Amino acid sequence: MRTYSSVPFSDVRITGPFWTERLDTVLTRTIPSQLRRLEEHDIRGSIKLPKPVPPPTIPIERNNFTVQIFWDSDIGKWIEAAAYALSHRRDTVIEAEVEAIIDDLAAAQAPDGYLNCWYLEREPENRWTNTRDNHELYCAGHLLEGAVAYYQATGKDRLLNILERYVDHIADVFGTRPGQKRGYPGHPEIELALMRAFHATGKQKYLDLASYFVDERGNTDGVEHFYTAEAKARGADPAHYWAGTYEYCQAHLPVREQTKVVGHAVRAMYLYAAMADLAAEQGDAALKAACEALWADVTERRMYVTGGFGPSASNEGFTKDYDLPNDTAYAETCASCAMIFWAARMLNLDLEGEYADILETALYNNTLAGLSQDGEFYFYDNKLESDGSHYRWPWHRCPCCTMNVSRLVASVAGYFYGLADSEIAVHLYGGAETELPVAGGKVVLRETSNYPWDGKIRIELVPEGTGEFTLSLRVPAWCEDASAKLNGAELPIKTERGYLKIRRAWHKGDIVELDLPMVPERLYAHPDVRHDFGRVALRRGPLVYCVEQVDNDMPVNRLRLPPDADLSARVDRDLLRGTVVIEASARVTLGDDWGKALYAPRRAREKDTVLAAVPYYLWCNRGQSAMQLWLRE
Amino acid sequence: MRTYSSVPFSDVRITGPFWTERLDTVLTRTIPSQLRRLEEHDIRGSIKLPKPVPPPTIPIERNNFTVQIFWDSDIGKWIEAAAYALSHRRDTVIEAEVEAIIDDLAAAQAPDGYLNCWYLEREPENRWTNTRDNHELYCAGHLLEGAVAYYQATGKDRLLNILERYVDHIADVFGTRPGQKRGYPGHPEIELALMRAFHATGKQKYLDLASYFVDERGNTDGVEHFYTAEAKARGADPAHYWAGTYEYCQAHLPVREQTKVVGHAVRAMYLYAAMADLAAEQGDAALKAACEALWADVTERRMYVTGGFGPSASNEGFTKDYDLPNDTAYAETCASCAMIFWAARMLNLDLEGEYADILETALYNNTLAGLSQDGEFYFYDNKLESDGSHYRWPWHRCPCCTMNVSRLVASVAGYFYGLADSEIAVHLYGGAETELPVAGGKVVLRETSNYPWDGKIRIELVPEGTGEFTLSLRVPAWCEDASAKLNGAELPIKTERGYLKIRRAWHKGDIVELDLPMVPERLYAHPDVRHDFGRVALRRGPLVYCVEQVDNDMPVNRLRLPPDADLSARVDRDLLRGTVVIEASARVTLGDDWGKALYAPRRAREKDTVLAAVPYYLWCNRGQSAMQLWLRE
Repeated sequence: MRTYSSVPFSDVRITGPFWTERLDTVLTRTIPSQLRRLEEHDIRGSIKLPKPVPPPTIPIERNNFTVQIFWDSDIGKWIEAAAYALSHRRDTVIEAEVEAIIDDLAAAQAPDGYLNCWYLEREPENRWTNTRDNHELYCAGHLLEGAVAYYQATGKDRLLNILERYVDHIADVFGTRPGQKRGYPGHPEIELALMRAFHATGKQKYLDLASYFVDERGNTDGVEHFYTAEAKARGADPAHYWAGTYEYCQAHLPVREQTKVVGHAVRAMYLYAAMADLAAEQGDAALKAACEALWADVTERRMYVTGGFGPSASNEGFTKDYDLPNDTAYAETCASCAMIFWAARMLNLDLEGEYADILETALYNNTLAGLSQDGEFYFYDNKLESDGSHYRWPWHRCPCCTMNVSRLVASVAGYFYGLADSEIAVHLYGGAETELPVAGGKVVLRETSNYPWDGKIRIELVPEGTGEFTLSLRVPAWCEDASAKLNGAELPIKTERGYLKIRRAWHKGDIVELDLPMVPERLYAHPDVRHDFGRVALRRGPLVYCVEQVDNDMPVNRLRLPPDADLSARVDRDLLRGTVVIEASARVTLGDDWGKALYAPRRAREKDTVLAAVPYYLWCNRGQSAMQLWLRE
Repeated sequence: MRTYSSVPFSDVRITGPFWTERLDTVLTRTIPSQLRRLEEHDIRGSIKLPKPVPPPTIPIERNNFTVQIFWDSDIGKWIEAAAYALSHRRDTVIEAEVEAIIDDLAAAQAPDGYLNCWYLEREPENRWTNTRDNHELYCAGHLLEGAVAYYQATGKDRLLNILERYVDHIADVFGTRPGQKRGYPGHPEIELALMRAFHATGKQKYLDLASYFVDERGNTDGVEHFYTAEAKARGADPAHYWAGTYEYCQAHLPVREQTKVVGHAVRAMYLYAAMADLAAEQGDAALKAACEALWADVTERRMYVTGGFGPSASNEGFTKDYDLPNDTAYAETCASCAMIFWAARMLNLDLEGEYADILETALYNNTLAGLSQDGEFYFYDNKLESDGSHYRWPWHRCPCCTMNVSRLVASVAGYFYGLADSEIAVHLYGGAETELPVAGGKVVLRETSNYPWDGKIRIELVPEGTGEFTLSLRVPAWCEDASAKLNGAELPIKTERGYLKIRRAWHKGDIVELDLPMVPERLYAHPDVRHDFGRVALRRGPLVYCVEQVDNDMPVNRLRLPPDADLSARVDRDLLRGTVVIEASARVTLGDDWGKALYAPRRAREKDTVLAAVPYYLWCNRGQSAMQLWLRE
């Protein structure tokens, strides 16, 4: 069933200006500052504790932060982000830091392979007693992802070997054989990590364990639900589950029976990513069908226009269909990262433009917003409207998002291309170079563009050998007037499921030009999204725009964009290190004739004005400022 | 400085249909069912515990409710509500229940007069160690209010005597003399209760203690802030105050320096009510000025159109100017009750129509919504928009609102009239009869009307004696075309601060007719209320309307009321036991041409429709239903 494989980050070199800038920032600012923050908050130290030493050597409260049971995951994610960055540009200081952490992890690992620093230090007797809540498997997954990335980036396998021992231990503890626990992670993550380890090493045991965790999830066929049995075993009342329902962790049903996207958004989409990967790997039609049903559910009813997911802070997740409040949006940065992981794996099942469209939306909007332009401040939740009180933080009590956005940006090259036997699919644009094995030969592909600011894309192919293959170029759904040329000659634009497919015997120096005109346009929400009813959003290319107070004289919450207002785009090289601004004739409600009354039986006066909108992902880089994405029409 | 006195509930008889129905419901349904609920949840039992008996005889968790430190207050409020109802119609069963509770309270009272059942039972050694958080003074206040009301309604003073002993004890503990605690309640309430006791008994000690609590509040002049000192004294770190700031309980500044309405909404407005009462009683210009500043702040920037207060659940209170979200509105029922208490006291400082207008708005909208039509279900929070998931509960873990709305409704007669030496002010209409001492004589006043459904009001005066006095009739701000007649002859409508003042020597049988035409009209919010921007509300007379799904075929969140749409009102005697419905030509957005996309660069189709709106206070009496108050225009 697997038709395509992702081309890994390590095989693609970013050359375009947009991502080069983000990668440089992440390498030079974000990753070093994250290490400092990990140290300041004792997260770095949490993996080199003397052990076992009760009472804990780190006080529970320090620097106003609480020692967290999931901190190994943050170390794993930092290693992963650092690995991607090292692949982009070697850095001896960062590499030495990673090695020092690996030293500590090696020293911390128990003789049986177990490696969770919270439990080793604090409650070794309670290992594997609460997989529902306590993140042991989640932490193992993130360490494994870090190990795989570091191996792929540097060829060094010491950490991967440590994790392989840990995975062997986990595979002893969990499974369906007598004496094994029939458990699975309350926070899915290790499943997709195991699949990455399988792809990187080819070792069947990783695939088998991933498959077990996915298949066992929510199983009540002849057995008691594992979390119920596990709670009883540790003397807890399963009815007192703090989250109330196993929907919270997507363990309410076997995964193949799940059709509604529910619960904690990051858990959900990490799980679906693994499901899609497994479906492709194992040719599992039922698993694929579940992924497709879940995809339709979330993208048709539970997604912000920015590619954000999970409106509610209380469960960090999903609520109801079309429930998408703007000023209280949670839309966690991690959740849009998770969607990108999932969408990339759906693209390996089917070359369906919608998967790439939503990957792109999540990437350029909700996800990129998670990191400040200077690379050192973060949004955990990504609101679509603010009175000015919402701003990026230098760190979080739960710093999951900080290293999710850095690892995503640092690995963006891994999302550009898909590969089949005789087909290269180009999912993203923005300037990237790669050499790919295709149709029995090799081809160098050089894509150059100023995407996402401009839709003019040029691809040069340098094949080695003469095999015929298909070059499939994504034509985004946002683009209505795409055109293309092959060596200067117009090509008919006939797309298959969102891709323009050019099949031929390619020659050295063949040039494909794709023009995706970017015009500012209005977007409307489904009429059941009551929060956006009567409102309009602005989009240009893959970027959703917002109106930020700092660019506008009049209060942004008093602006209205009439249905017939002109929209125009202009490049501003000085603003926000260079961006495209959308301007529109608009109306603003004045307060000058209103008086002091809070309510009155008359409208306030309006007058003409001009509004300026900037890309949503760039908001809040010039101090705190009110912001509005959905404008009254 | 006191110009007017409220005419107490016990001197006014409700005769009109609207309030007669509500009073009957409260007497026959609400008060008996509340007693059952108090028993089911052990609240009734919490005051007859054997004591001191550690461990507690009531388990902390029972019926899924936690024994609450503030339960004495609920008993006090129930007695108060029952007393008002008894004044309306004697009921031997209810009276016997009150007497039984008084027996228990008498038995529970400590020899020194102390009377808090939580502390007596559970932690007698900790009395008065945490006035900031632990509601001892708040509970005392509610018991005292109950005692005063029961005394006024029945003439029985046994409970009042018990409370007098308790107040004497409190006056020993708190004050500025050496050895006394310079404390004051974290939850204001006792201050207004003490003022009520003073008005009912004339005993100066009640006034003095109220005055002390108000004056000492927030004092840091030469002393450490009391809550800081108190926290240290009990070994707690004052920096770890869970609410973060003394603004939460309005103890951040001395009250005369407070100009911004902040913190917990009920605490705030209970305090302001006492401040207004004290200002009137003591001729305290600085206190009056503070009340006026706070009044302007809350009514001009922090009030829902329904007379709801405090948008935020997290502090049960105020946030920022113009921050009035609809679907997450907290707008606690208790807070609008508290506003009514405050407004009534402001009316005794100055006969200012605005005070009565807002009292009326809070009464007929946010407050009445708190109680179901059948009298047994309650809103704690009063949202202005719902997807259908918000509904009235039979009880609450913290049942403060349930008995606030019942005592308010049962005492509504006490808000109709104000009295000065030679002036009677009529604040509310709806059918009420009273006999008042004025200008050295007495006058019987009989007001008849079908208010709030109809604005035609008839007042018959039967004076005894010949003194000249002024009859001041409120002309609500919502009414633009009021007219009036005296014995059939047209009177010029010239109002002074919202009141039409008729001064003359009155004769038996004089008839004043006041016509306040009620037309459905549009209301708009101040342009800085971003949640209501581009939206319109409907009002007729004092009632704010909403669109409830059960009355409308099309989804209420897809309705739009164009600026030029006709509005009409019609009586529907069968709907909701008889009400006035507003109908309007409107537009509805269809989904039929939209497809599955969540976002698209085109509008969905609209078509004409007719919407039906019902009074907001009546919503959710026909099962769960989506509701929208502010409509797109």
